Amino acid sequence: MKQIEIKKDILSAHEMIAKENSELFKRKGTFVLNLMSSPGAGKTSLLERTIELLKNTFSLGVIEGDIATSYDAERINALGVKVVQINTGGACHLDSAMIKNALAEFNTDRLDTLIIENVGNLVCPAEFNLGEDAKVVIFSVTEGDDKPFKYPLMFRLSKALIINKVDLLPYIDCNIKRVIKDANSLNPDLRIFEISCTKRKGLNSWKKWLEEEINKKRNTSLPDE
Amino acid sequence: MKQIEIKKDILSAHEMIAKENSELFKRKGTFVLNLMSSPGAGKTSLLERTIELLKNTFSLGVIEGDIATSYDAERINALGVKVVQINTGGACHLDSAMIKNALAEFNTDRLDTLIIENVGNLVCPAEFNLGEDAKVVIFSVTEGDDKPFKYPLMFRLSKALIINKVDLLPYIDCNIKRVIKDANSLNPDLRIFEISCTKRKGLNSWKKWLEEEINKKRNTSLPDE
Repeated sequence: MKQIEIKKDILSAHEMIAKENSELFKRKGTFVLNLMSSPGAGKTSLLERTIELLKNTFSLGVIEGDIATSYDAERINALGVKVVQINTGGACHLDSAMIKNALAEFNTDRLDTLIIENVGNLVCPAEFNLGEDAKVVIFSVTEGDDKPFKYPLMFRLSKALIINKVDLLPYIDCNIKRVIKDANSLNPDLRIFEISCTKRKGLNSWKKWLEEEINKKRNTSLPDE
Repeated sequence: MKQIEIKKDILSAHEMIAKENSELFKRKGTFVLNLMSSPGAGKTSLLERTIELLKNTFSLGVIEGDIATSYDAERINALGVKVVQINTGGACHLDSAMIKNALAEFNTDRLDTLIIENVGNLVCPAEFNLGEDAKVVIFSVTEGDDKPFKYPLMFRLSKALIINKVDLLPYIDCNIKRVIKDANSLNPDLRIFEISCTKRKGLNSWKKWLEEEINKKRNTSLPDE
């Protein structure tokens, strides 16, 4: 019993800091994405493509979450975008306190969009709000079409689903229609984009959605007190 | 401080039950595998191929771990092998108590090999001993060649690494030599098998290794008291 109470306290502390982060982002008009997926589904590749699409129009920042290494941060750094690497040491997800600490490294007055790449894990990251505007789940067609119902929380809580690596469809057995149907039955409001990051296909509608969301958030920013 | 102590208690309870499981397996001479990987790397396909390879020689049992659904158990059931499905409800890994409960469903006197398929997750399952003889990490070449150093614990603790989906290598950018080099630098004793489960390639050396391990374990079983 005691154990459960303690868990509740930890969760509400995380939620409290997530709310603080969220209020800061609202005040500054910063649109914040939380990219989540299995290892190797293409989060960093999507980030690279997204930076290419947006960096001439918006000021961007990136937070990279990894258990170990700074491989991903080096890839983002090469594109000339400010990036902060969080190494969780072993923890299987980012949390709101890690994000709050990382925010100290950014000039949040000049940030239209912050993109957070979570630890590669289709389970735990969904359970922790970071204060973001939109969770985005990236699914690779190589993972097989049974995944939405096997990992339902991630699909339920996300605003957008990227179906990535569609260029590999001719070589594998994956029924995209089933993925879309199952994902939509878990979450009817889910926006779905079919993309190949490596072949740069299907990126236009993703770009359009992001631009709309970024502009919406910018327009609701509050004046500094 | 209190929180940390409680965590210790939970871990040692898990370890205690893992030890009980391990002792039972030793007494019965049952060789136990714990298959771990990212979602969609091919654990269930490997299981299907492994069952085909072994079922005429050995008596097999399977425990399926999933957050939700019994899709995988249905696939195994179709092969005529006894399978028990554990649905964790949300938990991102199996633990030794779940295995102990599931064991009640098997006749452990007649089980040469038990294969446990863990929840799809390249992080958390590695932290929980189940009482198994060998952890096996399945890595799909579609995940990219940087994964061993990004998820080091899984590779460090495993006895064997299956590099799966090698039939897709012509269509993607993955340097297998780097995977092997990095995995071996984390774990010099790691046995590595390059396999395509869907194309049934590279399975012979995997079969040979399993037969050796199963026979070794059978020979060290203790007489019933």
